[in-house]
Amino acid sequence: MTYAVGLLLDAGIVFASDTRTNAGVDHVSTFKKMTVFEVPGERVIVLMGSGNLAITQSAVSQLHAWNQAAPKTAVAKSRANRAISRAGSMFEAARIVGAALREVHALDGEHLKAHGADFNAMFILGGQIGDEAPRLFQIYAAGNFIEAGKDTPYFQIGETKYGKPIIDRIVRPDTSLTVAAKCTLISFDSTMRSNVSVAMPLDVLIYERDSLKVGHYRRIPRNDPYMTAISEGWSKGILAAFEALPDPDWPVAPSESARKPARRRR
Amino acid sequence: MTYAVGLLLDAGIVFASDTRTNAGVDHVSTFKKMTVFEVPGERVIVLMGSGNLAITQSAVSQLHAWNQAAPKTAVAKSRANRAISRAGSMFEAARIVGAALREVHALDGEHLKAHGADFNAMFILGGQIGDEAPRLFQIYAAGNFIEAGKDTPYFQIGETKYGKPIIDRIVRPDTSLTVAAKCTLISFDSTMRSNVSVAMPLDVLIYERDSLKVGHYRRIPRNDPYMTAISEGWSKGILAAFEALPDPDWPVAPSESARKPARRRR
Repeated sequence: MTYAVGLLLDAGIVFASDTRTNAGVDHVSTFKKMTVFEVPGERVIVLMGSGNLAITQSAVSQLHAWNQAAPKTAVAKSRANRAISRAGSMFEAARIVGAALREVHALDGEHLKAHGADFNAMFILGGQIGDEAPRLFQIYAAGNFIEAGKDTPYFQIGETKYGKPIIDRIVRPDTSLTVAAKCTLISFDSTMRSNVSVAMPLDVLIYERDSLKVGHYRRIPRNDPYMTAISEGWSKGILAAFEALPDPDWPVAPSESARKPARRRR
Repeated sequence: MTYAVGLLLDAGIVFASDTRTNAGVDHVSTFKKMTVFEVPGERVIVLMGSGNLAITQSAVSQLHAWNQAAPKTAVAKSRANRAISRAGSMFEAARIVGAALREVHALDGEHLKAHGADFNAMFILGGQIGDEAPRLFQIYAAGNFIEAGKDTPYFQIGETKYGKPIIDRIVRPDTSLTVAAKCTLISFDSTMRSNVSVAMPLDVLIYERDSLKVGHYRRIPRNDPYMTAISEGWSKGILAAFEALPDPDWPVAPSESARKPARRRR
């Protein structure tokens, strides 16, 4: 499986993705699922994929191919419209990613169906182009997409459930990049604890608004000291928070209620 | 949807289920999903269902019908083998629940298929009969089942993911009934916070080992003072635990790293 998350904040965007892929439990590998299109001073565009790796890789390869096609010949000129590094806006970039997925679907869709496989793919796309504000999109297998806003300033793809509650509790548009990055790692810690098909190393990229360059990219390896420290600290904090909660004052069972009279009965 | 959990402990069994059902978001109702077969001094058997309510209700009605069939005539005698209140062991009780599901499948399975609906149902069955130790089972739509043991002393059905991490962190076979009940409520709080199709009121039943009667049954309504107290306490505890974690000392973004030099670089 995969877990990837993008958080759109007033201060910029935090991206993170794991690297585990598996085709059955006996075929587990490590693949980078984060692709960066950067033109310093002009644009930073980050793409993270989940689903069938053959589909998402093909779509990314298609994006690179369109990007590299020099706009010289007539054919190349029409294709140049699909160069993500020349897209005029993030909306246009999202359409280009959708077009890449549709290109893969046109080539592979029927064949996957013939083998009983779904056309299963999803992307998170975020970044900033020129004067436009940073934007974040979630792109579906059909090539259509939704955009994050103030109400829901983040997208998750892949194994989303275990890591969602902590993001819902912590992240607001005005959360700092540092706190958002920490929250993202806790979200991954929760996910990796409960689903072995999401695993280290992680790729984390922090984009600061209006910087128009990659502020910080880090591959967090297995046994990274900071990740280990917050994972252990989080475990201890959760247990302490649980223990601090009052016990129910129900007469839980006859003998327990006899030993410890209920303070309050309802 | 549904969320239900059963925890098999050295001290007994904790059962809890929500009451929300929905057939589309415009058709939301409250139904009890917990059924108790109790013969005080002899047996306590608790059944909780998830999935298609028409299937689980039919299976429970079938169990009641088998139970009530007096073993007088030849036909009734053969049916008496399927009376859960006369089952000789929890294993036999689990087989009877499986048989009830198969009876419903025989009647409804083809018709559901004709309407493109899955035969979607799952039960948690637990309790104690006579001298046998308390036992806990998860019963699948096909009528087959698995039994909880020391390694995994609990089963969840329905919306299982949001409420799983806290159970994994807290519950061991030697956990007390009181702490297990508290953990169960936190597990429900996390689930209800993230999935609106799981909702109050909750049914909680606590069975104390060898008591052979229902130790404590409680319907926890919306705005229950204890539930509200631990839900709020848990939120505060989680936030405090998060804030206590060290921030990453990465140069998160150029300007941040300039303002706050990294203490440690890797």
